[in-house]
Amino acid sequence: VQRRWLVELAQLLAFPTISSEPACGTALQAAARWLADHVARIGLRSVEVLPGPNGGAPSVYGEWLFAPQQPTVLLYGHFDVQPVEPLDRWRTPPFCATLRGENLYARGASDDKGQLFTHLKAVEWLLRTRGRLPVNVKLWLEGEEEIGSPNLATLLAREQARLRADAVLVSDTEMAASGRPAITYGLRGNLSCTLEVHGPTGTLHSGRYGGAVLSPIQALSDLLSGMHRPDGRVAIPGFYDRVQTVSDDERSALRFAAPATAFGQGAAASTAWGESGFSPAERIAIRPALTMTGIDGGITGGAGGAIIPERASARLNLRLVPDQDPEQIARLIARHVARHTPPLVRSRVVFSGAARPVLVPRQHPAVAAAARAVQAVWQTPPAFARSGGSIPAVEALQRRLGVPAVLLGFGLRDDRIHAPNEKLHLPTFFRGVRTVARFLDEYRREQAR
Amino acid sequence: VQRRWLVELAQLLAFPTISSEPACGTALQAAARWLADHVARIGLRSVEVLPGPNGGAPSVYGEWLFAPQQPTVLLYGHFDVQPVEPLDRWRTPPFCATLRGENLYARGASDDKGQLFTHLKAVEWLLRTRGRLPVNVKLWLEGEEEIGSPNLATLLAREQARLRADAVLVSDTEMAASGRPAITYGLRGNLSCTLEVHGPTGTLHSGRYGGAVLSPIQALSDLLSGMHRPDGRVAIPGFYDRVQTVSDDERSALRFAAPATAFGQGAAASTAWGESGFSPAERIAIRPALTMTGIDGGITGGAGGAIIPERASARLNLRLVPDQDPEQIARLIARHVARHTPPLVRSRVVFSGAARPVLVPRQHPAVAAAARAVQAVWQTPPAFARSGGSIPAVEALQRRLGVPAVLLGFGLRDDRIHAPNEKLHLPTFFRGVRTVARFLDEYRREQAR
Repeated sequence: VQRRWLVELAQLLAFPTISSEPACGTALQAAARWLADHVARIGLRSVEVLPGPNGGAPSVYGEWLFAPQQPTVLLYGHFDVQPVEPLDRWRTPPFCATLRGENLYARGASDDKGQLFTHLKAVEWLLRTRGRLPVNVKLWLEGEEEIGSPNLATLLAREQARLRADAVLVSDTEMAASGRPAITYGLRGNLSCTLEVHGPTGTLHSGRYGGAVLSPIQALSDLLSGMHRPDGRVAIPGFYDRVQTVSDDERSALRFAAPATAFGQGAAASTAWGESGFSPAERIAIRPALTMTGIDGGITGGAGGAIIPERASARLNLRLVPDQDPEQIARLIARHVARHTPPLVRSRVVFSGAARPVLVPRQHPAVAAAARAVQAVWQTPPAFARSGGSIPAVEALQRRLGVPAVLLGFGLRDDRIHAPNEKLHLPTFFRGVRTVARFLDEYRREQAR
Repeated sequence: VQRRWLVELAQLLAFPTISSEPACGTALQAAARWLADHVARIGLRSVEVLPGPNGGAPSVYGEWLFAPQQPTVLLYGHFDVQPVEPLDRWRTPPFCATLRGENLYARGASDDKGQLFTHLKAVEWLLRTRGRLPVNVKLWLEGEEEIGSPNLATLLAREQARLRADAVLVSDTEMAASGRPAITYGLRGNLSCTLEVHGPTGTLHSGRYGGAVLSPIQALSDLLSGMHRPDGRVAIPGFYDRVQTVSDDERSALRFAAPATAFGQGAAASTAWGESGFSPAERIAIRPALTMTGIDGGITGGAGGAIIPERASARLNLRLVPDQDPEQIARLIARHVARHTPPLVRSRVVFSGAARPVLVPRQHPAVAAAARAVQAVWQTPPAFARSGGSIPAVEALQRRLGVPAVLLGFGLRDDRIHAPNEKLHLPTFFRGVRTVARFLDEYRREQAR
């Protein structure tokens, strides 16, 4: 069985479902079709490829609703992935899943194709061995998570009835450590933007004009450099105004759940940087961040390019914490950039991927069921953690449809998600399948108490 | 005749001789071969393709030495060109010379294939019509000017005897205005470098690590931003130490030669930026500059790329004035960068294209001859100007071989050299040919005085 599962997963991983790449639209369609077929074959009903609103990527729906009186769990995952640059750093091609030792290497192996597969295989295994599931199950697999789920609001409005459930199970987060799953109860919000600076209306010779025309690269560097203070805090006025103070009790509990030593391993950065007054793990879990993720302008290859370019641009990614609001933060950034753009160039900020931060209830029966499942399969209680990542659907389902989320992920800190040589640790994956199956059993039992 | 000249020039322009592009080595060889054939056909002798030292691009040599008792003029030009990015801004393909109105559009049309062609056609025309030249002529066409002539010192040492002359004529500079040639007596020196910043040893997820790991893009922005002061001066300690003060008389004369109105036209930048206390034209002509010409890091395309990249890099181009020394400036920059690199990242600076600034004598007989030629052909005296550009060969020929330069260029300010849609103004080109021929006559007459 295990061999067949990996062959199937490798097939899913082969679709280059990079949602930020317009040319990959076909791959997203094909992957959705493949998933719909697969999901129908393992026994779900009413399977459909739901078209993406506004020409966005499709999603996949399926259900099994033959457990009357029992609660309904919505299983959520996403089959789109991040870009693969820099391609030359991959040991094997990103869309050719490759087994090395205990790991399967491919883009999406952990985030999130491998993790959503734990749901599919748990459902398949229960239906094969028992012919039925302990609770009602709905499955919804998204194709735009990595670009911030831009069409989510429209989709939820349209599919409100279909997606209604008592809880949503999401496996798209990290474990506290190898061998110890975490239940994540906080996710940071998200906001991305492109900051463009336009200088001269044509490329200029840097000898003939250098010293008398401001390079847009210099203006952009000044703008970027002015976004942090020397103490690591974001320098945009009002940025911290709505940030919730986290209690000492919660900080202690989080420190216990995520020991500081775990941090350095994945980061591959020996010393940590950031806002003073907080530990590295806290800077990620409970504090907002502004990160520069890309920059581009002029000519950098080779020894030529003695020019003043017309434009330069940078990509910024912000992670927000309760109660920061992406729309308000966007306004603060736009105002800050406009105020600090020198009169000799023009700047423009284009925002995308807005998602609110979210805290999920820890006292829900589904959370108790997840904790019992972890104890049973892993012989340890789960850690309760807050993640620095964002899953727009979690916040939207909770706020718009009132469906609380159980974030029970099987990613490891060294899975290199979003990076070259992403991988899935297979022993963890197989135990993850068992944990999801056990969760469905425990959720039925919780309800019976 | 004019039609045939343009067909020949279009053939030369068709070679994609981008010296900064390793893949263009073949094109440089082919262009050198084409030029050698052409130069032999118009009547020069001892024509040779000189191999480039250290595997560099070849150059082309030819001579006509049948004017005993007369001085020898070395005609210099370069047949390599700048890169063509951004390619989508070209109205017609950069290596397919296209005639529109009075202009011929192609990369290199003005810098410097079109201008070096004024020399070739002047020699051809004199030899066709008279069977001889008024003075001895040597011709040397270089293939590495646009990357800062990295093998020049080796080549000059090897070819010292062959390149010896009484003066070198260079047409690789701008006119003061349309209809008024300039004799350029100052060139800024050059120095380029790549500044790399290395952060985490692997790409990281900006959600899982944002706020606790310094993005190399941020560190690079801080470094770049710290390189200028708010008043437009370069902030690197010692940068201005060896800068010569230019006398008020010379500043007045330059102001007269290059009216301020001329500046804005070419720059396509309505307001000028730069060091306070100097006019835009002065910032280019008599003051040094540090210009950011390229920047690159992370992922900028599309909405994805929520990462902290491993590295970011920028290209800087410096223009130096007498008596700044590129090697000393390189040391100052390296020290400044090392001192300001935060401990959480590593930085590296790689220098290239060092060329010293140069002032050429204005009282040489060849300069007087050039001024007379301009008066005769253009009915106006030339302007005496200092250029912000650099031509490494001019400084090297003067300093190493004692050959003073006459910089008599036929470029127009709106030729868009180094930029998309570079062009050559054909009426100016044809008058340039006549001016070069007249210069050779006048130089003989000057000697006779």
